Amino acid sequence: MRILVTGAAGMIGRKLVERLARLGSLRGQTIDAFDLHDIVPAEVPETEAAVDILASDLARAGVAEELVAAKPDVIFHLAGVVSGEAEANFELGYRVNLDGTRALFDAIRASGQGPRVVFTSSIAVFGAPFPDVIPDEFHPTPLSSYGTQKLIGEALLADYTRRGFFDGIGIRLPTICVRPGKPNKAASGFFSGIIREPLAGKEAVLPVPRSVLHTHASPRSAVNFLIHAAEIDGERVGPRRNLTMPGVSVTVGEQIEALGRIAGSKVTRLIREEPDETIWSIVKNWPTRFEARRARELGFEAEQSFDEIIQAHIEDERIELSN
Amino acid sequence: MRILVTGAAGMIGRKLVERLARLGSLRGQTIDAFDLHDIVPAEVPETEAAVDILASDLARAGVAEELVAAKPDVIFHLAGVVSGEAEANFELGYRVNLDGTRALFDAIRASGQGPRVVFTSSIAVFGAPFPDVIPDEFHPTPLSSYGTQKLIGEALLADYTRRGFFDGIGIRLPTICVRPGKPNKAASGFFSGIIREPLAGKEAVLPVPRSVLHTHASPRSAVNFLIHAAEIDGERVGPRRNLTMPGVSVTVGEQIEALGRIAGSKVTRLIREEPDETIWSIVKNWPTRFEARRARELGFEAEQSFDEIIQAHIEDERIELSN
Repeated sequence: MRILVTGAAGMIGRKLVERLARLGSLRGQTIDAFDLHDIVPAEVPETEAAVDILASDLARAGVAEELVAAKPDVIFHLAGVVSGEAEANFELGYRVNLDGTRALFDAIRASGQGPRVVFTSSIAVFGAPFPDVIPDEFHPTPLSSYGTQKLIGEALLADYTRRGFFDGIGIRLPTICVRPGKPNKAASGFFSGIIREPLAGKEAVLPVPRSVLHTHASPRSAVNFLIHAAEIDGERVGPRRNLTMPGVSVTVGEQIEALGRIAGSKVTRLIREEPDETIWSIVKNWPTRFEARRARELGFEAEQSFDEIIQAHIEDERIELSN
Repeated sequence: MRILVTGAAGMIGRKLVERLARLGSLRGQTIDAFDLHDIVPAEVPETEAAVDILASDLARAGVAEELVAAKPDVIFHLAGVVSGEAEANFELGYRVNLDGTRALFDAIRASGQGPRVVFTSSIAVFGAPFPDVIPDEFHPTPLSSYGTQKLIGEALLADYTRRGFFDGIGIRLPTICVRPGKPNKAASGFFSGIIREPLAGKEAVLPVPRSVLHTHASPRSAVNFLIHAAEIDGERVGPRRNLTMPGVSVTVGEQIEALGRIAGSKVTRLIREEPDETIWSIVKNWPTRFEARRARELGFEAEQSFDEIIQAHIEDERIELSN
């Protein structure tokens, strides 16, 4: 079993490779080799398997063909520029997120090998206005170039799968929370920041009202989704290959209450409310709550509560509570 | 007012240009020039306006830039290979329907001119299973490469409009009936064939059960949709730029009854039922009935009955009834 991961140097990519290295097998087969691709060199995981670290631009002619020539059995296509970057740099976003994806899919088609392809899409394919609970059959009308590029990737994935060029599953990730690492400038950054920073004894800014409702899954769940998507029976999925993942729908106020239950009020007092109109104008157009019925029926599982999401963060990032 | 039409040599393209030439104005402005593009030379319409006939491959480097350099105020982007061809020839379909559309949109973006762009999409963006009536918010999950390419065109159109590169409206056409001309091998061909051929005194084959329900609009309505889409206030449409057009939902049995009312039983007796499993297996996955609420609210109008659709055919194609 040979595994190719694009975007292997990103946060989810690293955690996925770490987990796969620990598991040692996928789809019931021993993992013999990892091809870890990104625009910068990915970390080498602790594993007995062969590891190739590949740093290049997936959208450049010939790169995708080179990756596919190694004959991967499973491809996790996580590569992409993030939402804010795709919005700020129109041409870069389309080049990486659309042309890169199409180059990879076309290289697979040309190879005739038909691997399982797991593609990370995003709830950014949806755009306001929304019903209270977004059903699986709700139409995607993205309000960002990033969401548009992900939607196009989904459409290609479904068609290339229908044509038999590969066996693809697209998973629409909810907001991943708690993101480890440093605060970033993403509009969604505060959802993680208000948990991660206070747990580290640092102040965090809350730029939106506590009533904001949003759906989250932990990085651990994101990795679970990816692995389940790699192992699931394609026949069971049918022709609708892009699935909205489940998650925990909570208000910001409920996030903070969960933090209080776990870490105490000394920690939650580190959250400072400082309304930011710019962030609020973006966030208020985001989807709130998903039904995700098909994904649940197909066995995709997320946390049951935001408390669990915080616990996953504390365990996975080895955080010591001081209280 | 300068108008560019791509796909100007096609059936809808020809009828659109004829109508615009007759009207002489669009959006309240006199039409001074037509640029009529297609892969083969389009007919020159009867008009006082300047007419440029341009025959080339839109997906070839430089062609789209050349078309846009003439500074069209309104662009009707109808060009594309049809469903059956896109399915039979994967690379041709993606090249023409996706790369051609993107080349045009990118040339417009580079020009900085911001014209109104009317794009013909299709109900082929939808794939079974369906609810009884397909609402405007139903998700598109195409089951053909053609439908996939149209969906990607819609997504690009919405994003390029949101970005302010142009002012786009995508219209999802129902099955156009009655198509003039010769019988073709399209799976949908019989919907027109069972009306057109008997009216011309010729036998027609009905390959599916009379209970098949489908939505139709006349070529005349398709032209009405295109012109209304060119004239509509973009602000009123909002960010959801792709609209399912209204139509007449009837069973094949009701189509034949309407033909009988208009042309008599001598004509309907020319329809021979000859079940074809291949055609039936395609047609049974097609959408049946659409709500098309937004389009109706925005003033798009189709026929009210299939009788009207047949009358439009008889008038527009100057057919003489013999009974």
